Amino acid sequence: MTVGGKDFRTIWLKPDDETVVQLIDQRFLPHRFVIEEVRTVDQMATAIREMHVRGAGLIGASAGYGMYLAATEAAAQSTTAGFEEQLLRAAEQLKATRPTAVNLSWALERQLKAIAEGRDAAEKVALAQRTAQSIADEDAEYCRMIGQHGLELIRKIAEKKAGGHVNVLTHCNAGWLAFVDYGSATAPIYAAHNSGLPVHVWVAETRPRNQGSKLTAWELGEHGVPHTLIADSASGHLMQRGAVDLVIVGTDRTTFTGDVANKIGTYLKALAAKENGVPFYVALPSSSFDWQLRDGLKEIPIEERSPDEVKQADGWFKGQQVEIRVAPQGSPAANYGFDVTPAHLVTGLITERGVCKATEKGIRTLFPDRIP
Amino acid sequence: MTVGGKDFRTIWLKPDDETVVQLIDQRFLPHRFVIEEVRTVDQMATAIREMHVRGAGLIGASAGYGMYLAATEAAAQSTTAGFEEQLLRAAEQLKATRPTAVNLSWALERQLKAIAEGRDAAEKVALAQRTAQSIADEDAEYCRMIGQHGLELIRKIAEKKAGGHVNVLTHCNAGWLAFVDYGSATAPIYAAHNSGLPVHVWVAETRPRNQGSKLTAWELGEHGVPHTLIADSASGHLMQRGAVDLVIVGTDRTTFTGDVANKIGTYLKALAAKENGVPFYVALPSSSFDWQLRDGLKEIPIEERSPDEVKQADGWFKGQQVEIRVAPQGSPAANYGFDVTPAHLVTGLITERGVCKATEKGIRTLFPDRIP
Repeated sequence: MTVGGKDFRTIWLKPDDETVVQLIDQRFLPHRFVIEEVRTVDQMATAIREMHVRGAGLIGASAGYGMYLAATEAAAQSTTAGFEEQLLRAAEQLKATRPTAVNLSWALERQLKAIAEGRDAAEKVALAQRTAQSIADEDAEYCRMIGQHGLELIRKIAEKKAGGHVNVLTHCNAGWLAFVDYGSATAPIYAAHNSGLPVHVWVAETRPRNQGSKLTAWELGEHGVPHTLIADSASGHLMQRGAVDLVIVGTDRTTFTGDVANKIGTYLKALAAKENGVPFYVALPSSSFDWQLRDGLKEIPIEERSPDEVKQADGWFKGQQVEIRVAPQGSPAANYGFDVTPAHLVTGLITERGVCKATEKGIRTLFPDRIP
Repeated sequence: MTVGGKDFRTIWLKPDDETVVQLIDQRFLPHRFVIEEVRTVDQMATAIREMHVRGAGLIGASAGYGMYLAATEAAAQSTTAGFEEQLLRAAEQLKATRPTAVNLSWALERQLKAIAEGRDAAEKVALAQRTAQSIADEDAEYCRMIGQHGLELIRKIAEKKAGGHVNVLTHCNAGWLAFVDYGSATAPIYAAHNSGLPVHVWVAETRPRNQGSKLTAWELGEHGVPHTLIADSASGHLMQRGAVDLVIVGTDRTTFTGDVANKIGTYLKALAAKENGVPFYVALPSSSFDWQLRDGLKEIPIEERSPDEVKQADGWFKGQQVEIRVAPQGSPAANYGFDVTPAHLVTGLITERGVCKATEKGIRTLFPDRIP
């Protein structure tokens, strides 16, 4: 997608020096657009752990590129025997950065397998580079396909509205910043906008970390998509008043029965959508399905994060990025990272293979090869 | 209620100089506890308009005290003829500070009527003082009664829980800071706490103005009530997991059919409560009923406030209170102040006369004299 009118991905090899990985350091958005140069696996581990990069797809791609950097380092330092060991250590190091990220371990395993095929260091490095590139390209392609399938949903609503804007509500950031390009929830929005359909997005700010106001509003703005920022609490009111045509959100993990774990607050939006007859879609690449889990409410663990995130807000003050305290020093706070939206509240799932119902049967029609 | 172990109301006459009104300047909470001395009607108009004081009951009481200050000023300056005129001007001035606050005009009319009974300036001033005191005392008494009726609801749940904490979830600040004492939604909580029942409060921060984290968390903390601050988005998750025994919120205006206008986000909490079988109560003095309105969704106008509130957060940074920007400069925002919770989502109304169903019939049983 575009930033300042130029095309960008979230991560890429530096064009004039392919030993360097470049990525958008998201910690400074929306206030400053910073590109970081990553030259070592150590630096990549830091970038993932400290959330310079975040989001399922992007974490996977970053791990892929991290293993390429590890291979380059190993080739410069090791014998062929030491090489293998060094790569395993790098994979361990990267895996430890975000232990619950499914795409992370998946990308690392794929790289280890690919690199093992190389007969010497040079070939291993070349394979690692090619695999990193493939992981990133596939991520982008899957998101692009999600966009194409979701576009049809938006197009149908646009036809009914006869020229009026299609109002999409989204939560958190399931945008291109969370993947390599396009995003999941945003992919249908970008596809609609790019094909000339009039689309407008209600962006829920997504306290406490404000991924909506900091990331989604920024990326939509940079790409020129009309949008309006709202407090999380406003979503019900908007649906009640007919100001939302459909909801599209992403997911951190979805069971093969259609229960959706996503950023805290998604469940409330799904309840309001149901109550007001607003279609509620979840956009996801198949890598976000958990093929082992049947009951999302019982089986998906909900991460509790630092209470400080609830007691604080960060933003821009007099030319610098600062954290302020918004609550009494002595008040305890609780910070649940995610909630689970039961499948019966979900109208459908938008995947790279098409749109299906949020039921085991519906998911099986698209992924007969994946459900156990 | 207590602050730093001492009993306080939100507004009172200065003990050693009854020509001065003292009030808690809420703009600095929770960071600094500031008592303001108000000596003129001009100063009181500023205090109301600039929200040093806010909340239905407290605005009414402030207007009452403002008219007392106006009477004192008039007595010092005017002939008996000029007195009347000056009081009318003061009432106009106070009324213009928050044009939609129902309690404001009610208190002003009551004062004008009372003051008119005085035969001379001295008697008028005495009547104005007595009436201001009565308005404040009645507000406190109504809230105390709400507390007593609500206490029974909490006691019943406590009996079932056999020693475990009763978990009450609330939104915004319908606390004693919004009234003269006790509060509406908080009155049953304080009553339960004071009578030794184990009660714990989930406080929703209430973006964008954060009345939950800034005011409710502070007043509960000062009074020693166990509480935990949460992001607004977390309320559904907590109810889904059985962590909420009942919801109690306040209201800005409730129709005589039971539709409830309250701070934006109340509706989402009501939906989650309904879905999860959690009782959802609205606590209100009868002054918050609108006896003219039948259909809350169609007839209650929803105030749109400045978008800047959504794009900003204010809090404490390096020893000062600052406002920071949390969103891209160029992104538009929308800021709906209230939403309407339809009566069918409301379990009951807790009023100074008792608890009733949120239906015209239910409300009529308690207020047969008020419904048209």
